[in-house]
Amino acid sequence: MKLAMIGLGKMGGNMARRLARAGIELVLLDQDPKVTESVAQATGGASASDLKDLVGRLSGPRFVWLMLPSGQITQTAIDNLAALLSAGDTIIDGANSNYKDSQHRAEALALKGIRFLDVGVSGGVWGEKNGYALMFGGTVAAAVAMEPVFKALAPTPETGWLHCGPAGSGHFVKMIHNGIEYGMMQSFAEGLSLMHGKSEFNLDLGKITEMWRHGSVVRSWLLDLTAEFLKHDDAVKNTAPFVADSGEGRWTVLESVEQGIPAPVLSLALMARFSSQGKDDYGSKLLALMRNAFGGHATRTAAAPKSE
Amino acid sequence: MKLAMIGLGKMGGNMARRLARAGIELVLLDQDPKVTESVAQATGGASASDLKDLVGRLSGPRFVWLMLPSGQITQTAIDNLAALLSAGDTIIDGANSNYKDSQHRAEALALKGIRFLDVGVSGGVWGEKNGYALMFGGTVAAAVAMEPVFKALAPTPETGWLHCGPAGSGHFVKMIHNGIEYGMMQSFAEGLSLMHGKSEFNLDLGKITEMWRHGSVVRSWLLDLTAEFLKHDDAVKNTAPFVADSGEGRWTVLESVEQGIPAPVLSLALMARFSSQGKDDYGSKLLALMRNAFGGHATRTAAAPKSE
Repeated sequence: MKLAMIGLGKMGGNMARRLARAGIELVLLDQDPKVTESVAQATGGASASDLKDLVGRLSGPRFVWLMLPSGQITQTAIDNLAALLSAGDTIIDGANSNYKDSQHRAEALALKGIRFLDVGVSGGVWGEKNGYALMFGGTVAAAVAMEPVFKALAPTPETGWLHCGPAGSGHFVKMIHNGIEYGMMQSFAEGLSLMHGKSEFNLDLGKITEMWRHGSVVRSWLLDLTAEFLKHDDAVKNTAPFVADSGEGRWTVLESVEQGIPAPVLSLALMARFSSQGKDDYGSKLLALMRNAFGGHATRTAAAPKSE
Repeated sequence: MKLAMIGLGKMGGNMARRLARAGIELVLLDQDPKVTESVAQATGGASASDLKDLVGRLSGPRFVWLMLPSGQITQTAIDNLAALLSAGDTIIDGANSNYKDSQHRAEALALKGIRFLDVGVSGGVWGEKNGYALMFGGTVAAAVAMEPVFKALAPTPETGWLHCGPAGSGHFVKMIHNGIEYGMMQSFAEGLSLMHGKSEFNLDLGKITEMWRHGSVVRSWLLDLTAEFLKHDDAVKNTAPFVADSGEGRWTVLESVEQGIPAPVLSLALMARFSSQGKDDYGSKLLALMRNAFGGHATRTAAAPKSE
């Protein structure tokens, strides 16, 4: 099996290494030629200089896996590839793309006879070692042809991969997965904050989370990771209380609204991230001013802005 | 090591069986003499007929583990035991008691020289096989004396048990554990509901949760259990959408309010359970009537009440 992999960052680069160990022959391309060369050396794969060169190094039916940032970058790569590929070839999008985009892309590519698979890939930076969970959508024929690759990326050939349904369903299931992840992370964060706040007990959160890993109801991979970083006091002290969010958390909440099915906790976990980004500061200023207006309650003076 | 165990239900009975296998000698008492007899036969332990008989079957220093419903039943048992025990004996409360009650009980018992340990026990009905996570509060001397019992109940002698801090801290940590559990469960429930609602994809939630168990970020023991029951379609179909709540979820939210530290997701996970109990039906009726009042929007007629 020969596979082209485009985008060799944290996810794509690690996946290429895992695939190479399983004997998958690789053609590699990153926007940074140095990264392409480095992964090529690590995997024994071929370095491509651009999309045209990459496609020329494959023979039909061709398989091209994109591991690029979702959105316009992925769209552009698909558009350019579509002009270079032929009927019977397959494009696989492993990014966290919006599932509606994936539905549209599958339709557009089908008009040219090009197959499309949307693949949600979970496992983070540990996936190279542990294997990735893979959830994919598309036609049965396209999915079956890629099975050797899925079996190589998954934790074992028998576990951690699933053809979920038609085009879009892979990225839909990954979106929901990440939405759940937001809720689970927020749950741990809130509970640990209340333990941290109970100073009279002087609790050792590193030891408590380590103890919970064994036999408790909340044991989970997220807890394993949390127990690990809590062993190092400096990790919390040196980290700013700012949590980024990416598309999938937002899309999960939009999906709840579109379906009219409540997802209060997943929504609030997203809102908590917005708060961490300082996005409720304006609202908090207004609340302070309202209390002042009706009750004369004191406000605090804003810190002087930093020189710019 | 000889230990008395009072309350032999789902938790206490299973714990007695695990302790017996580890060679702990047991004196047993349940409110139902048939249950006492049954567990005694399974464990080779002694059946006590009442508290006085139970205490008489121990010699100092005595160790008595309570595995009773929290609240008044536990309080009464402690009061009655306190009159029968002597200085140097130890009462262990393994129920999900309120940590403030445990602080008070430890103080009251200390006046008589009786030691008290508050122990949070996690692991559910699977604990007998997998071992329990044990988080306990109290004096070092009391905790050290009980180590053989903790090591027998935990998954391994080295993992899953922790002396968290002073009296009350064990039940405090267990309270937070359960609060986190509420949030994690609600996160999975909401995400799976959105997948169920996406009927056009015809997703197999049993297969998806099984796939997630391997390599995904959300892998966890709660996911393992969910994947298992989702294999049987009837489980969901035959279960009413009513979720009970117990003290610890409520106490976690009260703790958030008392500390003034936000726990929005844990709070909303609790509120979702109240909703499932029909406790927002009155509010929903009012909302329907308000919409009708200002906009003439149709309301639905309440179903005829069932004959009583």
